Amino acid sequence: MVRAWHLKSRPHGLPAADDFELKDVALPELGEGMVRVRNRWLSVDPYMRGRMNDAKSYIAPFQLGEPMDGGAIGEVLESRADGFAPGDLVQHMAGWRDEAVVPARAVNKLPDFAVEPQQFLGVLGVPGATAWFGLLDVAAAKPGETVFVSAAAGAVGSAVVQIAKAKGMTVVGSAGAADKCNYVRSLGADHVLDYKAGPIRKSLAAAVPDGIDVYFDNVGGDHFDAALALARNHARFAICGMIGDYNSAEPPSFRFMTRIIAARIRIRGFLVIDYMGRMGEFYAGMAPLVASGAVTSRDTVYDGLEAAPDAFLGLFSGANTGKMLVRL
Amino acid sequence: MVRAWHLKSRPHGLPAADDFELKDVALPELGEGMVRVRNRWLSVDPYMRGRMNDAKSYIAPFQLGEPMDGGAIGEVLESRADGFAPGDLVQHMAGWRDEAVVPARAVNKLPDFAVEPQQFLGVLGVPGATAWFGLLDVAAAKPGETVFVSAAAGAVGSAVVQIAKAKGMTVVGSAGAADKCNYVRSLGADHVLDYKAGPIRKSLAAAVPDGIDVYFDNVGGDHFDAALALARNHARFAICGMIGDYNSAEPPSFRFMTRIIAARIRIRGFLVIDYMGRMGEFYAGMAPLVASGAVTSRDTVYDGLEAAPDAFLGLFSGANTGKMLVRL
Repeated sequence: MVRAWHLKSRPHGLPAADDFELKDVALPELGEGMVRVRNRWLSVDPYMRGRMNDAKSYIAPFQLGEPMDGGAIGEVLESRADGFAPGDLVQHMAGWRDEAVVPARAVNKLPDFAVEPQQFLGVLGVPGATAWFGLLDVAAAKPGETVFVSAAAGAVGSAVVQIAKAKGMTVVGSAGAADKCNYVRSLGADHVLDYKAGPIRKSLAAAVPDGIDVYFDNVGGDHFDAALALARNHARFAICGMIGDYNSAEPPSFRFMTRIIAARIRIRGFLVIDYMGRMGEFYAGMAPLVASGAVTSRDTVYDGLEAAPDAFLGLFSGANTGKMLVRL
Repeated sequence: MVRAWHLKSRPHGLPAADDFELKDVALPELGEGMVRVRNRWLSVDPYMRGRMNDAKSYIAPFQLGEPMDGGAIGEVLESRADGFAPGDLVQHMAGWRDEAVVPARAVNKLPDFAVEPQQFLGVLGVPGATAWFGLLDVAAAKPGETVFVSAAAGAVGSAVVQIAKAKGMTVVGSAGAADKCNYVRSLGADHVLDYKAGPIRKSLAAAVPDGIDVYFDNVGGDHFDAALALARNHARFAICGMIGDYNSAEPPSFRFMTRIIAARIRIRGFLVIDYMGRMGEFYAGMAPLVASGAVTSRDTVYDGLEAAPDAFLGLFSGANTGKMLVRL
């Protein structure tokens, strides 16, 4: 029997395990142009928190009582679509379940790179592309500049650190525990700040007293304010996620907001879906870095479909180093 | 005797009258290349509040016990510089006083437009250029777009309203009293919001339920948050001033900050001094609008050098409609 996670209730603030329900589902018939896929890896991502609210956004909200979805890597079991055969490894959006019947046009065969398939959910997938385009396009970071990245031990942040180092930038990364800080240091970051050890603004000012040219924001809140405080003239902020603010009942406050004027700061929010037409450019730049070992990745893996909500909730308690995955 | 306003003490929060002191000063000798100028009009501007703090910024802070300065229009009384003769009307930065000896290279003869000289402190001066470049360059506002501008009855805001209307945009302006709202309406704004009559976010949503493409920020705080809430995809914010936040002890909080990501908002602080090399472009575009009456201006005038601090303080209590000036 096929099982899928359903959204049982809309969380207020931090989601809880009983907002989710694992239920049997019937698969549709395998029509012409469809493939049946057995999932091997599921992705859980911070943006899914937004989909749990009943709010208009760039992506439809999860519906109450309906199966959830998200990125996944699976193996084709059965195909009625040209170009797909049993055994093919594919990437698709019918995650949060063990098996799915999906239209072949919504499925991508994995490119033939010598990497593990789950890397297409990480460093060569959405998190890697988010890091690449956020750093190099949105923030237009240049060799020789100083880049501050928050949540630097996360899937996106760890890719930002390594891409920036590969491109000749000075990198300051923040993370929230000693082992994560060690991991960020191992990626080549010039300065690593443990934000749980003291106010991030003070540690950032101590690490780079001359300030930062680029801020890659994954967390919002006090990190964002610290970046405002330390921004050099004409600094650019790429706003990728504000995970610290998604579940907060109190709106974030920014003591250094008025610096945006004197320092002529440019702040830009972005979504990687706007770059899907440029994935070829990303593969061309990123695959050699991964192949050469200049960009490595580390996953935090939870086992079994039952563990998917715990993996998701772990994103908000800092349980992951690198990409958070569920292995089926 | 020549008199000049001196900064007596650095204010915390809102400045007060006794932070200023009017004292006699001795003028330097009129050396070669210098002019002696009798001031006719003094400008007081919100940015001067920042100069009262002892903080590194884009412009040097006022020094305690020293004369202050700022924009002024004056008449040359005596000249030892080529190209300047008694009777010439000039613009310069030795304001906050009645008379000054200044190097001719720091003085601009007023262009020969058929306008009142004090307009070069307003609609054809720094406030007008701020409106022009902020709207058309920083925010890249286009015909047909919807523009929200805060402090729309102020010197910059009133110019933004009129430039935007002249360029075929839909304009929403906010102001803080019935007479100011009437003034903004008279400038052609499509919607005028009295922010003292209720929460600005609700009135903005009621006026333009489909949202805004551009926000021209003069005040920060709840206006900025309202603009975040109503921003359409790919909206651009030009951050010119956050007058509501300059004197605030409490840091501003933003409930809708995370919308920057989903709506891909671009927020950019700017200083008009970065556009000084493009003033010719501004005059070429703006002077015809002023000459044709498409862009008008209104001043709030305080009389006499003694009134300068009151005029300045009035900026923070909303005492001005249009440009705040001191007439000597």
